[in-house]
Amino acid sequence: MEQALTHPRLISLAAGFTDNPSLPVTETRAVLAELLEDEPGAQTALQYGKSGGDPRLVRLTAERLQAQDAAALPRKHSLPVNNYDPGRFLITHGSQQLLYLLMEALCDPGDIVLVEDPTYFVFLGMVQSRGLRCRGVRTTPEGIDVEHLAVVLERLRREGELPRVKLLYLVSYAQNPSGITTSLTNKSAALRLLKRDELAAGHPIYLLEDAAYRDLRFAGAEVASALTLPGASKRVIYTSTYSKPYATGIRVGYGVLPSQLAPVVHRLKGNHDFGTSNLLQCLLAHALDSGRFASHLTALRRRYAEKAAVMGEALKQHAAGLLEWREPQGGLYYWARLLGPGRTGPKSRIFQAALKRDVLYVPGLLCYADDPTRPKPDTEFRLSFGGASEEGICEGIARLARAIRSS
Amino acid sequence: MEQALTHPRLISLAAGFTDNPSLPVTETRAVLAELLEDEPGAQTALQYGKSGGDPRLVRLTAERLQAQDAAALPRKHSLPVNNYDPGRFLITHGSQQLLYLLMEALCDPGDIVLVEDPTYFVFLGMVQSRGLRCRGVRTTPEGIDVEHLAVVLERLRREGELPRVKLLYLVSYAQNPSGITTSLTNKSAALRLLKRDELAAGHPIYLLEDAAYRDLRFAGAEVASALTLPGASKRVIYTSTYSKPYATGIRVGYGVLPSQLAPVVHRLKGNHDFGTSNLLQCLLAHALDSGRFASHLTALRRRYAEKAAVMGEALKQHAAGLLEWREPQGGLYYWARLLGPGRTGPKSRIFQAALKRDVLYVPGLLCYADDPTRPKPDTEFRLSFGGASEEGICEGIARLARAIRSS
Repeated sequence: MEQALTHPRLISLAAGFTDNPSLPVTETRAVLAELLEDEPGAQTALQYGKSGGDPRLVRLTAERLQAQDAAALPRKHSLPVNNYDPGRFLITHGSQQLLYLLMEALCDPGDIVLVEDPTYFVFLGMVQSRGLRCRGVRTTPEGIDVEHLAVVLERLRREGELPRVKLLYLVSYAQNPSGITTSLTNKSAALRLLKRDELAAGHPIYLLEDAAYRDLRFAGAEVASALTLPGASKRVIYTSTYSKPYATGIRVGYGVLPSQLAPVVHRLKGNHDFGTSNLLQCLLAHALDSGRFASHLTALRRRYAEKAAVMGEALKQHAAGLLEWREPQGGLYYWARLLGPGRTGPKSRIFQAALKRDVLYVPGLLCYADDPTRPKPDTEFRLSFGGASEEGICEGIARLARAIRSS
Repeated sequence: MEQALTHPRLISLAAGFTDNPSLPVTETRAVLAELLEDEPGAQTALQYGKSGGDPRLVRLTAERLQAQDAAALPRKHSLPVNNYDPGRFLITHGSQQLLYLLMEALCDPGDIVLVEDPTYFVFLGMVQSRGLRCRGVRTTPEGIDVEHLAVVLERLRREGELPRVKLLYLVSYAQNPSGITTSLTNKSAALRLLKRDELAAGHPIYLLEDAAYRDLRFAGAEVASALTLPGASKRVIYTSTYSKPYATGIRVGYGVLPSQLAPVVHRLKGNHDFGTSNLLQCLLAHALDSGRFASHLTALRRRYAEKAAVMGEALKQHAAGLLEWREPQGGLYYWARLLGPGRTGPKSRIFQAALKRDVLYVPGLLCYADDPTRPKPDTEFRLSFGGASEEGICEGIARLARAIRSS
């Protein structure tokens, strides 16, 4: 990000920036004007609020999430509506803050977090800097590989490490980096496996579902969250964000917490900053209530679908035979793998050749946890179509292909 | 705060709310309209930024702080201008977040933090919840009691505890809760004492100067920050906030960090939330640059001076003979002490009698660290004139006086 902000000739296919031209400038102007026009509303927005979150934003968030899950479930399934109780919600300064609070609340140094191979590298950096250990679980086109999860848990049981396992972290919708959406079947099977091993662990093992890209899906059928599963109320932690689907400059995330966890995470939030900026929360509540959030999101999804198609075309044109990839159903990324020999890590010839050609990507290597039980794959790329323009995407992929060919 | 937000008949002299009618509604409306009118500026505000802070806000903050310190120093003193280098600054989601990051960066469980008796109770709650120990240092009308600091350090040396001492926390301007401003002489003497004991400690002992109420002083001469002292560049951490002097709903704080600390604190900030909302930062930068911050602050200081005078009058009218207090030179609080017998803690008859009369205060007890070397005083009140109306202040003090008399 730093590089992209200070080095304008660079084409960054690396940073998780969202698309600049589609930022909701008009919407935000209107929302803020309306919000601040009304004196009591303006005073609320400019004053301290409750540390757990603005009640109106909490209610709107809970209602929206419940509606999303209801729409994604087959008719015959009944929704566990208590799981969407506003009392279970916490609003944070971006969902990253919630992830941090959760790691603080749940994990001691040396504890083990199960993650997907590959997974969100900022999360990895954070957990590993806190002295936590990770074990990677393979993924399939349907999300987490449940059979491999069983193997990993069995190995941890044999090693006597189950008591250190605290949670499984799933980026479940249009995953960062792979673009994969985890099926409800797989989430359900994973939750059952975790539950099965709790007795041996001696404590709850949580399923932490990070749905940051749920709103940015532009293809594929709706998938209900793990909150709809049996036993979810006590074992599923759900986090998501308004930053990516609305505006990344407005850092507001949220989580749904099991009731036994809510007090400790709320207390930590109070210690961190006693509450997310009320102005940001009121802005989002008003954007949701006025329908501007929804209309912006519709436009944004269309925009990302177009940019994904542009990158897909560029890959076909420039990188056929060099790379393999899958069309993402949402999010901001293509995940691509070298077909021939070579590596893609920060010290690799390909990375250096790309840098020399002023194109930046996230090496796949960074998206794998330090897991002593397997080597890290070093032949993949995370390619973002979020921040770059259409021209930038095409030129960036062309440069990358030249860099690969030259290495 | 929770009670004040949900129980409207209550008069809260407890919460640290700022004054509702003087919130900068008009200013914020204008600032946001101008900010979002310009398309590139609007896009910057709505996009991710650098995790350390918006460069424009950092520059304006550094310039403003340097000018404040230059104005407070006698002419003949030269300012150590390198201490205001923008590279030393970090912008956070309120200054509370910065305090949290610092405790994470500097202290392990069991470490010792030196604090004033009394001090900011939210800081105490945070450090004690992180498993840190505190030792209280007495205060005088000139701020920290330097002789007592020497006694406390000597005792720690004898106990072999100096290696656990990491920092001295000073709320140095219109202190929360006592209203006292620490003289530069006392800050200088404290810094020398800390420096003297570093060899025995085996590591740096920092002076953490929390200047949260510096901008809210409405009486007394200007006092330069500890950044102006010899040796400050390596040992003084300075934190302050825009939340209180502008709007508490806009949570933006900042800190000046010694260069050896900056990388670790910046990295932690990245892990917490990779940057404070750019919209809030751009809003404040524009408020500063346009002069609206300054004009609002002038009005706000006048307003708090008036409200302080109202509370002073109410105390004279209702509590003379019951309480003793000092006129604050700024901030939001009176600090008062029972003249007769009785206690003021949460379980005391006075607190319960006050609650029954629908008036809330912060018991002085909460403003003292858990320090095994002394009992906690339990005869004081922190009385806020920030959030209550003039009528509320008068009625609240009258009710409080009746509660004391009835107990």
